[in-house]
Amino acid sequence: MGRVYLVGAGPGAPDLITLRAARLIEQADIIFHDALVHPDTVALARGAEKIAVGKRCGKRSTAQRFINKRLVDAARSHEFVVRLKGGDPMLFGRAHEEIAALEAAGIAYEIVPGVTAALAASAEVGVSLTRRGHARSVTFATPRVGTEEEESDWAPAVVGADTSVLYMGIGQAASIARCLLERGMSPATPVRVVENASLPGMREIQLTLSELPLAAEMGVTGPALIMLGDVFATTASGSIATASNDMLPARARRA
Amino acid sequence: MGRVYLVGAGPGAPDLITLRAARLIEQADIIFHDALVHPDTVALARGAEKIAVGKRCGKRSTAQRFINKRLVDAARSHEFVVRLKGGDPMLFGRAHEEIAALEAAGIAYEIVPGVTAALAASAEVGVSLTRRGHARSVTFATPRVGTEEEESDWAPAVVGADTSVLYMGIGQAASIARCLLERGMSPATPVRVVENASLPGMREIQLTLSELPLAAEMGVTGPALIMLGDVFATTASGSIATASNDMLPARARRA
Repeated sequence: MGRVYLVGAGPGAPDLITLRAARLIEQADIIFHDALVHPDTVALARGAEKIAVGKRCGKRSTAQRFINKRLVDAARSHEFVVRLKGGDPMLFGRAHEEIAALEAAGIAYEIVPGVTAALAASAEVGVSLTRRGHARSVTFATPRVGTEEEESDWAPAVVGADTSVLYMGIGQAASIARCLLERGMSPATPVRVVENASLPGMREIQLTLSELPLAAEMGVTGPALIMLGDVFATTASGSIATASNDMLPARARRA
Repeated sequence: MGRVYLVGAGPGAPDLITLRAARLIEQADIIFHDALVHPDTVALARGAEKIAVGKRCGKRSTAQRFINKRLVDAARSHEFVVRLKGGDPMLFGRAHEEIAALEAAGIAYEIVPGVTAALAASAEVGVSLTRRGHARSVTFATPRVGTEEEESDWAPAVVGADTSVLYMGIGQAASIARCLLERGMSPATPVRVVENASLPGMREIQLTLSELPLAAEMGVTGPALIMLGDVFATTASGSIATASNDMLPARARRA
């Protein structure tokens, strides 16, 4: 019986995986990876069988139950199984389902954390999520607006936080904005939309909450985060940032 | 004029830094590091001058303004300056002050994200922070209870979130519990206190919110996180975890 490593592949840039992740990938006999994991990261698994299993905004996705079964099967026929997940496995990564399947089958596993996209985006835009004196709390959430199966309400944690980062929400930007405005958030709340954080195609859009629906018209096609909060009102040096709708290339504000 | 790299050193384990961080540390001419950064990580900077500047729960800390000045001075006399911060620089890391000082002095800088302690702790205890069907939001906060200068209220984001992780709060566990109970959180809310996440001395304590004040008597001396939320009620396989006050050695529940 083999062992399964659930490994965070980080935000996208291949050199933002951890040393431990790199070492484990190199040792893998078989590797299952999300669609969004960088090809250079997958390529570290030189001798391994490589299987893409997932999930890209619901498109071309492999059913979670099928992934669970394949992981269990792989551990029965391979010594060293790596399941490579975008970002961090335990944050919006459906790790729970895979862990439960492995435990039910009596298969040993280990979890290796990764750099989550929000932190890469924060580094790219040069704005601390918890700027001292301005923010003591930051919420990460995956919004889901207007579905029947509203299993938990994501909005109070966002409204209550000094800073928030919304994952996988850009496709419903308009309804997210409406929802947060209805809950009393100020229309002037500064927003940054960060697309492809840590990758060459990274793009940053400055908006306010009332302007967030415009993001739908800005051709955001890659994975994007919606970041909200007063910390985004100012540049790092404390001056007021230029007004809405500026698109800035990555890192242009520094160096 | 040199360049300054603000680099996340990750949660503690030396192999949980990123490949980029390791490469930059190896290239450094001079390195300023927090007290909590692992000696093996600092030691990667073979030829560099190494200066400890940190910050350990207020004790033995170097004034932030002095750190800012030293970074600016270092960039004027060295090509390659690394500022190594525990966890991620942009999350509870006071990066803003250092960035502002560098920008004011016209010094180029780059920020390298890191694995934050909450994600390492989540991996260690084997519980997803955002278990599907149970949690869509997670709040990270640094509580501050009963001080005059209450610059922002950390509690609503915690009360509103499905899952929360409190950094640097163990010393005021009793007042945190009182505060959250007063705000309407259930006394039965499952809590995990995780000490020394990712390090050999890692320890996990299972409690409920009403029992959180007991943590003060449990000899927690290392850096500790307070994790709250229903996701901690069950083990990964979905069964109910054993009742309160269990101390579990790291990773014992798996393998």
